[in-house]
Amino acid sequence: MKTSMATVCISGTLADKLHACAAAGFDGVEIFEPDLLAAPESPEEIAAIAARLGLTLDLYQPMRDVEGVDEDAFAAVLHRAEAKFRLMNRLGIDLVLCCSNVATASIDDDDVSAGQLRRLGDLAQGYGIRIAFEALAWGKYIDDYRSAWRVVERADHPAVGVCLDSFHILSRGHDLADIALIPGEKIFFVQLADAPRLSMDVLSWSRHHRLFPGEGDFDLADFTARIVDAGYTGPLSLEVFNDTFRQTDPRRTALHARRSLRWLEDAVARTLAEVPADLRMLPDSAAPSGVDFVEIKAEDTSAIEELLHQLGFTSRGRHRTKPVTLWTAADARIVLNEQHARGWEPRLAAIGLEVDDAEAVDLRMHELRVPRAYRRTYATEERLDGAVAPDGTEVYWAQAADEGEPAWVAEFEHGEPETPTTVARVDHVSLSQPWQAIEEATLFYTAGFALRVDSSTEVPGPQGLVASRVLGSPGGEVRLPLNVAPPILADQRAGAALPQHVAFACTDVRALARAARERGFIPLAMPGNYYDDLAARFEMTDAAVDELRELHLGYDRDAAGEYLHFYTRTIGEVFLEFVERVDAYAGYGAGTAPVRLSAQGRR
Amino acid sequence: MKTSMATVCISGTLADKLHACAAAGFDGVEIFEPDLLAAPESPEEIAAIAARLGLTLDLYQPMRDVEGVDEDAFAAVLHRAEAKFRLMNRLGIDLVLCCSNVATASIDDDDVSAGQLRRLGDLAQGYGIRIAFEALAWGKYIDDYRSAWRVVERADHPAVGVCLDSFHILSRGHDLADIALIPGEKIFFVQLADAPRLSMDVLSWSRHHRLFPGEGDFDLADFTARIVDAGYTGPLSLEVFNDTFRQTDPRRTALHARRSLRWLEDAVARTLAEVPADLRMLPDSAAPSGVDFVEIKAEDTSAIEELLHQLGFTSRGRHRTKPVTLWTAADARIVLNEQHARGWEPRLAAIGLEVDDAEAVDLRMHELRVPRAYRRTYATEERLDGAVAPDGTEVYWAQAADEGEPAWVAEFEHGEPETPTTVARVDHVSLSQPWQAIEEATLFYTAGFALRVDSSTEVPGPQGLVASRVLGSPGGEVRLPLNVAPPILADQRAGAALPQHVAFACTDVRALARAARERGFIPLAMPGNYYDDLAARFEMTDAAVDELRELHLGYDRDAAGEYLHFYTRTIGEVFLEFVERVDAYAGYGAGTAPVRLSAQGRR
Repeated sequence: MKTSMATVCISGTLADKLHACAAAGFDGVEIFEPDLLAAPESPEEIAAIAARLGLTLDLYQPMRDVEGVDEDAFAAVLHRAEAKFRLMNRLGIDLVLCCSNVATASIDDDDVSAGQLRRLGDLAQGYGIRIAFEALAWGKYIDDYRSAWRVVERADHPAVGVCLDSFHILSRGHDLADIALIPGEKIFFVQLADAPRLSMDVLSWSRHHRLFPGEGDFDLADFTARIVDAGYTGPLSLEVFNDTFRQTDPRRTALHARRSLRWLEDAVARTLAEVPADLRMLPDSAAPSGVDFVEIKAEDTSAIEELLHQLGFTSRGRHRTKPVTLWTAADARIVLNEQHARGWEPRLAAIGLEVDDAEAVDLRMHELRVPRAYRRTYATEERLDGAVAPDGTEVYWAQAADEGEPAWVAEFEHGEPETPTTVARVDHVSLSQPWQAIEEATLFYTAGFALRVDSSTEVPGPQGLVASRVLGSPGGEVRLPLNVAPPILADQRAGAALPQHVAFACTDVRALARAARERGFIPLAMPGNYYDDLAARFEMTDAAVDELRELHLGYDRDAAGEYLHFYTRTIGEVFLEFVERVDAYAGYGAGTAPVRLSAQGRR
Repeated sequence: MKTSMATVCISGTLADKLHACAAAGFDGVEIFEPDLLAAPESPEEIAAIAARLGLTLDLYQPMRDVEGVDEDAFAAVLHRAEAKFRLMNRLGIDLVLCCSNVATASIDDDDVSAGQLRRLGDLAQGYGIRIAFEALAWGKYIDDYRSAWRVVERADHPAVGVCLDSFHILSRGHDLADIALIPGEKIFFVQLADAPRLSMDVLSWSRHHRLFPGEGDFDLADFTARIVDAGYTGPLSLEVFNDTFRQTDPRRTALHARRSLRWLEDAVARTLAEVPADLRMLPDSAAPSGVDFVEIKAEDTSAIEELLHQLGFTSRGRHRTKPVTLWTAADARIVLNEQHARGWEPRLAAIGLEVDDAEAVDLRMHELRVPRAYRRTYATEERLDGAVAPDGTEVYWAQAADEGEPAWVAEFEHGEPETPTTVARVDHVSLSQPWQAIEEATLFYTAGFALRVDSSTEVPGPQGLVASRVLGSPGGEVRLPLNVAPPILADQRAGAALPQHVAFACTDVRALARAARERGFIPLAMPGNYYDDLAARFEMTDAAVDELRELHLGYDRDAAGEYLHFYTRTIGEVFLEFVERVDAYAGYGAGTAPVRLSAQGRR
């Protein structure tokens, strides 16, 4: 189906926005009136720019407070409408959005509203224009799509139809069954926005917190499928008021927006029994089954090597064509990369994920227009496909090996045979996000890799609250906590403000901590008060608490199980964690995180 | 009365927080448990640091979910409590905050809760500790201070009293009359927080959006006066969970916090019929009666001089001891300062306000511990008293002249006599605030100058929403819109991200625009689409719209009157506006501001 976006969704001047939408592959745009008023270009110039860029101008919006008023007020409405219809003729737009009255309505009577819409329709028709009437969630009398349709049905005018906006309908929890009662040709327009479930007034929620489809809690696939089922054939258009998206680079945000519609198209196609030809699914792809490797990049990675050695990893040698080394412990593989890393402090630069169908992921990423990561590989080497995540991390994917180590490991030479270790695999990888990237990152991992949002929380640190959202595979094989540092640190690189970290799952974290200590390892020091509190909270024996204290282990327990873990110091922008999950514990030691943040603040 | 603050209010380690509170003049602190857990110092060391700094440790908090549980769960409560009481003995704290149960409560029975508090009281008493029981606004069964008091009364134990928290009570709108029914000696502690009126779930509101007293919409003076009236003699303690204050420099935020309590002390004293000896009013002071001067500072101010000349201002000469010049137009006085301005682009550096009692303002600022501004003045010159506002702007105050120009004008030499002009006075001064300074700035202007918050709004700009809050005098003689740029611009100086501006009131803005044009003035260009929309919105004649268009005038109209205005281009970090208010129009042309922001973005 055709795609469109309201210009209010992104930042910049109207001309900037048109260029951004065209570059991102949108078919058209809705012109948001304030954007036009502020533009130095005339309506004819805007129409010409759009035409040159290959964008259709699908809708002019919004026209407010047009019905439910007395005759004097309605005369003013007609005056105002006629001026706008003339303007729309200059722009070459033939559809205008009229929202239900929130301010000037004085008459709660369907017949009055219908009559006024009919007269407005007569006026519009003379200009070749149609009216899409929309119920705002906070409309004074008309605040429900079913009421809007009732009035439009009563208006019974060829130039008057409805606009269905997912936010106004889903935020109020209105029953969607009646969408089927609206003839498809009377649905003149559809506006799509997702949103997180928030308990706040619906106007503020709508104006500040909308999200692109796939990023919030609304079921956009079901909503859109019902509209397609009803016979709607117009564009799928985004209208997302979001404080962040209004600030960020419009070209990047438009790409992000377009990606959300590609995701939605797939989700809708999967929902419908009968899929129209212009709705295409993405290739099927299951969530990743594991972490193939984690790459840390720096001009000099020797401090990381020393840590890995102390923590029982084995050096598996150097890559045969690159200044890259591999360290492993069972299924945990760390690549240390010194190529093109002049001046870099150690940072987490890439992750590799094991997938069941690498080609399908490749095609999905292509369809989603995700920027590709590139690594020089040579003819005899394993191919490496990857994408650049919104925070700049490169995420690669490879077909999971049937058994044993992945084939690329053989490219490393002169290594030692692996010594047995308690470290089993990567448990989770925490990635610090710039504050403006978290929604885009969520869509990247869910649409690109079929990960899902497992949980969201906030962790108090000494410099403010750290927001954390975990993306994970259904079985917990891949867990990616995405963390956002408090805004006070926003001018720093995300990883510098809040270090990234890799956590490794162990079968016996106490044994590992002891063995590492014997090899000279010094863990991140946990404060004594923390252990006094553990004793009070969990009714542990003194001996058990003393062991944790001695090894600087963090501890948590919930109904599902226990969590024991320790941290290394931070090197550059990265640190390591070693964790043991007892029984079905699925968390991340939330009680320990503030203590860890504080200890890291003291480094 | 004694002052205290919960350590959760500010950023840093626990030791940082103690130092900040002591430096700001607090008498004591509440120890927030997570701060202690994360601290590397032992409880004894924390107690010693506090003692050396002269801070009392007034409260340990919070202990959660202690009542309304079955006997098995209560045994665990007692175990946990005993560990905490031992810890409190080590800290030397004799009062603990217990909040009403939100999680583990299974029994909704006052007798059960009272009995459990009594047994907890028995245990506490053995450690010389008392329990302050508080109803959380979202408590499972006990969510109202009256219920908490009913349970405490029934517990009837000398070691069990209530804690009254203004947020939990005022957010729910509970009747305050029953505070008078609680004996003063049973009010063990009082926690104070203001908040904006928000329509959202009370837990999120409480955890993220509390403000210091005087900065929100709650009547803290009335609340606190009732508690003092009831006979409470403990400290007035702040417990303000605020995402911003948790991030900012703790020393600065502690001073800000302490200032809010000094404001509150005054407000409470003014509320009470009988004022206790330890509650002191601030000196009386009315709101300023006008703007004495505005100062623009730069290495070279000639571009501003050219503008002022074009706009009908008169050069009144150079200061006799400083590289400073004065330009005036009736009661509008602009000081151009090139002293100590090496490398500065023009920016708004200072404002002078006319007050009825300069000495009273001076004393208020002293009592509020506001940092002072300093200007070198010489023996025969007028004295200049000022303070540094949170955004760095220097704000001076001087006794309003009985008639004619202020005495300091005579210090400028070799000027011209003023030519008649339509410019009458300063209408408003818009100051861009760093995002972390807006609350502190609000308190600075309200407590220091008796200005009040007139209105708040959000203006869409091409790079996001600009939040605007107007501080004004009751008669509109002084109007200071404080603007906060979108976070994407946060790493820039506030004035560079969003220019400051001075608006001058004129009696005939059309005549001024024409006259200025004849002197070569070029206004900020307003787009043609803006004028087409004016014609549609306001049903104006073509001639009227054409005149506005020709002169690049902005226009607004509301029920009270009309507003006509134009802008200069931005020079450095500042621009000028010239406005004509017709009848009682009290706004700022909100409809024009987005168009202006967009036009400025194109410079």
